[in-house]
Amino acid sequence: MVKKAGVLGATGSVGQRFILLLSQHPDFEIHALGASSRSAGKAYKDAVNWKQTDVLPASVQGVVVQECKPEGSFKECDIVFSGLDADVAGEVEKAFVDAGLAVISNAKNYRRHKEVPLVVPIVNPEHIDIVESKVKKAKAEGKEKTGFIICISNCSTAGLVAPLKPLVEKFGPIDALTTTTLQAISGAGFSPGVSGMDILDNIVPFISGEEEKLEWETKKILGTLNEDGTEVVNIPEEKMKVSAQCNRVPVIDGHTECISFRFANRPPPSTEDVKRTLSDYVCEASKLHCHSAPKQTIHVLEEQDRPQPRLDRERDNGFGVSVGRIRQDSLLDFKMVVLSHNTIIGAAGSGILIAEILSAKGLI
Amino acid sequence: MVKKAGVLGATGSVGQRFILLLSQHPDFEIHALGASSRSAGKAYKDAVNWKQTDVLPASVQGVVVQECKPEGSFKECDIVFSGLDADVAGEVEKAFVDAGLAVISNAKNYRRHKEVPLVVPIVNPEHIDIVESKVKKAKAEGKEKTGFIICISNCSTAGLVAPLKPLVEKFGPIDALTTTTLQAISGAGFSPGVSGMDILDNIVPFISGEEEKLEWETKKILGTLNEDGTEVVNIPEEKMKVSAQCNRVPVIDGHTECISFRFANRPPPSTEDVKRTLSDYVCEASKLHCHSAPKQTIHVLEEQDRPQPRLDRERDNGFGVSVGRIRQDSLLDFKMVVLSHNTIIGAAGSGILIAEILSAKGLI
Amino acid sequence: MVKKAGVLGATGSVGQRFILLLSQHPDFEIHALGASSRSAGKAYKDAVNWKQTDVLPASVQGVVVQECKPEGSFKECDIVFSGLDADVAGEVEKAFVDAGLAVISNAKNYRRHKEVPLVVPIVNPEHIDIVESKVKKAKAEGKEKTGFIICISNCSTAGLVAPLKPLVEKFGPIDALTTTTLQAISGAGFSPGVSGMDILDNIVPFISGEEEKLEWETKKILGTLNEDGTEVVNIPEEKMKVSAQCNRVPVIDGHTECISFRFANRPPPSTEDVKRTLSDYVCEASKLHCHSAPKQTIHVLEEQDRPQPRLDRERDNGFGVSVGRIRQDSLLDFKMVVLSHNTIIGAAGSGILIAEILSAKGLI
Amino acid sequence: MVKKAGVLGATGSVGQRFILLLSQHPDFEIHALGASSRSAGKAYKDAVNWKQTDVLPASVQGVVVQECKPEGSFKECDIVFSGLDADVAGEVEKAFVDAGLAVISNAKNYRRHKEVPLVVPIVNPEHIDIVESKVKKAKAEGKEKTGFIICISNCSTAGLVAPLKPLVEKFGPIDALTTTTLQAISGAGFSPGVSGMDILDNIVPFISGEEEKLEWETKKILGTLNEDGTEVVNIPEEKMKVSAQCNRVPVIDGHTECISFRFANRPPPSTEDVKRTLSDYVCEASKLHCHSAPKQTIHVLEEQDRPQPRLDRERDNGFGVSVGRIRQDSLLDFKMVVLSHNTIIGAAGSGILIAEILSAKGLI
Repeated sequence: MVKKAGVLGATGSVGQRFILLLSQHPDFEIHALGASSRSAGKAYKDAVNWKQTDVLPASVQGVVVQECKPEGSFKECDIVFSGLDADVAGEVEKAFVDAGLAVISNAKNYRRHKEVPLVVPIVNPEHIDIVESKVKKAKAEGKEKTGFIICISNCSTAGLVAPLKPLVEKFGPIDALTTTTLQAISGAGFSPGVSGMDILDNIVPFISGEEEKLEWETKKILGTLNEDGTEVVNIPEEKMKVSAQCNRVPVIDGHTECISFRFANRPPPSTEDVKRTLSDYVCEASKLHCHSAPKQTIHVLEEQDRPQPRLDRERDNGFGVSVGRIRQDSLLDFKMVVLSHNTIIGAAGSGILIAEILSAKGLI
Repeated sequence: MVKKAGVLGATGSVGQRFILLLSQHPDFEIHALGASSRSAGKAYKDAVNWKQTDVLPASVQGVVVQECKPEGSFKECDIVFSGLDADVAGEVEKAFVDAGLAVISNAKNYRRHKEVPLVVPIVNPEHIDIVESKVKKAKAEGKEKTGFIICISNCSTAGLVAPLKPLVEKFGPIDALTTTTLQAISGAGFSPGVSGMDILDNIVPFISGEEEKLEWETKKILGTLNEDGTEVVNIPEEKMKVSAQCNRVPVIDGHTECISFRFANRPPPSTEDVKRTLSDYVCEASKLHCHSAPKQTIHVLEEQDRPQPRLDRERDNGFGVSVGRIRQDSLLDFKMVVLSHNTIIGAAGSGILIAEILSAKGLI
Repeated sequence: MVKKAGVLGATGSVGQRFILLLSQHPDFEIHALGASSRSAGKAYKDAVNWKQTDVLPASVQGVVVQECKPEGSFKECDIVFSGLDADVAGEVEKAFVDAGLAVISNAKNYRRHKEVPLVVPIVNPEHIDIVESKVKKAKAEGKEKTGFIICISNCSTAGLVAPLKPLVEKFGPIDALTTTTLQAISGAGFSPGVSGMDILDNIVPFISGEEEKLEWETKKILGTLNEDGTEVVNIPEEKMKVSAQCNRVPVIDGHTECISFRFANRPPPSTEDVKRTLSDYVCEASKLHCHSAPKQTIHVLEEQDRPQPRLDRERDNGFGVSVGRIRQDSLLDFKMVVLSHNTIIGAAGSGILIAEILSAKGLI
Repeated sequence: MVKKAGVLGATGSVGQRFILLLSQHPDFEIHALGASSRSAGKAYKDAVNWKQTDVLPASVQGVVVQECKPEGSFKECDIVFSGLDADVAGEVEKAFVDAGLAVISNAKNYRRHKEVPLVVPIVNPEHIDIVESKVKKAKAEGKEKTGFIICISNCSTAGLVAPLKPLVEKFGPIDALTTTTLQAISGAGFSPGVSGMDILDNIVPFISGEEEKLEWETKKILGTLNEDGTEVVNIPEEKMKVSAQCNRVPVIDGHTECISFRFANRPPPSTEDVKRTLSDYVCEASKLHCHSAPKQTIHVLEEQDRPQPRLDRERDNGFGVSVGRIRQDSLLDFKMVVLSHNTIIGAAGSGILIAEILSAKGLI
């Protein structure tokens, strides 16, 4: 059965991506769109400055935008995707959850809450079990509807943890990790986003808050649930040192990360072991036959000059992650280049795939 | 007295830079230009596809290009700058040295020879002492002319070692170092250089041979001379681990490097100590009042989003190096962003400044 | 029945596009690949430096590349697409035609031959009648196989003539036309193509031979067949003045053209008439239900800042053409902005669509 | 004697350019800086987000920013440069003129006032005579100070009219003119200016109000003064048809214009005549030996692929204009490519040069 989907922050760059993905999706239909009061009451096509490379879907053009309140058609939604900015997301999303709605948010506000799963769907869908426990408990208590929130990770975190997960599963903990990112400008949205004067023939070696997010979120996403499955327990600081240096580069889509890392266990695996483990990894979403799940979760590229954002970002429709130049490192154990599509697996696409997992598990 | 300068590889991108810098230089005059036999015999303006942002200097337009042989006006040169490609540089430069000429080369061919100084003039001019010994010895033996060669370092190495030198001088050895580079395309020349299709909206996470150069040359440039001053002794592998990851980015000029490093001595200096040491550093070329020496060798930038190539590459006419975002690192001791102008301090400009030092020391 | 397709120049940029489009095509299968003797004998994946944003299709990876001779599996092809460079296309294509093969060429060599149709499939498929006559005549003479060649137009010509055709059909001849083009770099191929140093933060206001092609080809494509349907008769010089100024710009795909034009008939149509005529235009390929034919041949965009290459080039998979800013001109009658995908409707895609028309007409 | 200069809108992009040029100028000193009330009271270095490629001049760093009112040190200024946005420029500039100050404005507000000269200093300095008349009249009336305003033209207009002026002087009126512009993003400022998402791998074929400005201003700048020298009389619409199509392109600095034009007089001059006339043109500012006047007003480039913005925009420090590809046009008489530095001769630089002319004429 097709699920009813709502989108908060529908006119923004993440919201537009949600809408584009949903409009082409067999399992969801767009049922409610929310934006600021300035847009409320307008047909979506009149409220939005559509900036996607695909044309604004005809089916969405006439949908009347509402305010971001858990009212009207939003109340009928099976799932609500939030592309809201952090300054308003906290309050709005809370109101939706309190109203019994299932919310998947791209905002950072609740990412650090222990009881909120921070999910990269090709990496740690098992953290969704927190929600499962909560829903079951509520049902047991006779509640009909249980609101909850699941957070999508930061875009550069998603790309980083994708190859780490299978390696940690197979070879044990990684205790040291560096990443220097070369991040696309679409991650900053487009109003105003990154100024052309700042990025043409230039690099900006700073993205506000990004390094802290990368360093912190990695330890939550690779962390485990507590015994009763109600909270995420991060990997402790002393067990995993993560050091990030983030740059904005003149690329439209696709975050490139040059990473190096060390396993806690000695001796480390061979380069061939690492490659095979990455190639063999099948994420749970793929096993569940989710619609958007990548056919190949991690693409191991053997060409010496790949991955490249323009050539490799669209692999598996942006849901796959590409890894290349896997080689030994003189300082830590390995270094390699990771490429992920920042607005798909790094943002809206992850939200959609999380919803597919929720649906497959009967949680929405 | 104005010195007579020759340029080998005069029509190439490094050669053009040499010519531009020399044409505006008070201490040198262009006396001989060498290029392939295809160009020989032509006026320079007819032989070259001039691609500099400054106009081709009138004084050079009519100079007749010769073949790259130590004959004719080349024999009268006080100094010869080589911008030759590696495939021909080895043989040609040897012939010039054998003919008693002083050669400063941007090619990689002789960089690893122990008795050839590999010099970043704002970093290790003391390695030129090898030449001084050689010249003195030859004079003592009654020889009138002594040929020698000094190599300019790889462009990304120059930027890297500039801030390391004063830190090592002050705080002792660095035993671990990582650098992820974001390198401008001018480093690859322009015929063909980096293809537009490869670099627009893209990153190429590989530059052939670059990581090896960075890792090796750093240990030579920061190395010392042997007892009798005739050879460079590299820092041993086991004393300094250097790990590089090199990327080509859509930037015209200016290499950005995100580096992290650890001092061998415990405890490491404070962040303030590091900043002050970098700011206070005055390179020897400045003390010698060389014409091109930077007023400020290392610019420590406090703005959180600097240095940026487009805004900072021209500091001190491209002879200064900019360092920003100096901060502690959770894995090693410090991380920071280094920016250097790859075609000036990273290539031709270094050659000119080396020649100025040679002149100041009476070696040419 | 699926047709057997051959591709000449299979490793080049146009050849790669042919292969990509054919590999996803229901009506064609790749049967023979030809390239230089350097590539001949290798599996395609080993011969090519694949630079498409879609992955090299698995079905093509193992195909063994042949030399470009009408032998072996090429002789079994129903249709041969040529992406050869002009320096070899003339001879090779002639050999294929002489061997009785049907050739669709992207090279310029035969474009000016009167008996060779120069076809933009959404514009002048009626010129294919020349081939129909020839094939019928040959059959009548008892020949089993008839070789022929059809030329694809220059990329910037294709975009230009697309909106002109319906206007001329409806409102009569255009007697004056100016176009200033802003052309993407993919049109120049990638080996070497346009150098990054030439195009980053830059415009190159010259493309060799391009203005002449635009001015000449327009008059052939909009021309008519002679009485017996064996030759194309160009619009005479004195009946249509075309003036082109061509620029290369830092855009990957998508040629933008700022055009202005005047109708011969007075009074000219209204702006609304022009818009409606363009919107209503249905190309013959669409009427024939060709697989690649655009759903909407010409997209009339009303937003004041469109079309834009990054946002609009993929409309109808690159087979549609976008037109915006249609407005009256103080000098001629109208000015407007035309955008077309230079490697699809401007090159390989046109070849495929021509083949679909040939197939629909029973000519292959 | 060094003149005291004030700058209105000192923190904006045009204001920064004024400050940079003034700080290096022998004839002016920065005496007053004005910005919004948010910046007033701060040292300039704390008020500005300095985005120039030259370092913020030390001499300006500590200057305390004032509000934009004709008070305090502004009253002591010999000349006031306005880089204000149009929404506030009208009122502020009027207040300054009313207070008896000489204002040179980059804003559009007064450009269409008949009694306000609209000046490209290398083109129509004779329009400054309006001010001379006014000042003399005021002096005759015993007034000590006479406020006046001179407007700088729109950036793309400046480049266009530069080569037209000498041609019109020599060969008589131009009655038809088309220009398609490829405009750099620095013209839009940087806060927010053109978004990176809008301009990377893209063209925006629309700049609000730009085409109207180009078409109108050209006729004023090439116009004449009325009999009593108090007003500018535009070239009448019917005497000169100007048609512009304006595009924003991914270039930092330098507007490229592809123009074509027709002389009213028959027969038109030869291509050689046109080239020689452009090369021979010496603007009045050069004759007056103004400090910033170009050595060569118009550079006629013979290379077939020039001018290019990255290579040619800095000619004569951005005060010269480059013209290339001069050739006959099949529709009008000639077509050619014009390149001008939009933030120098197209904006702040023009303001400085106008002030130099005023000074040379004893008007300030």
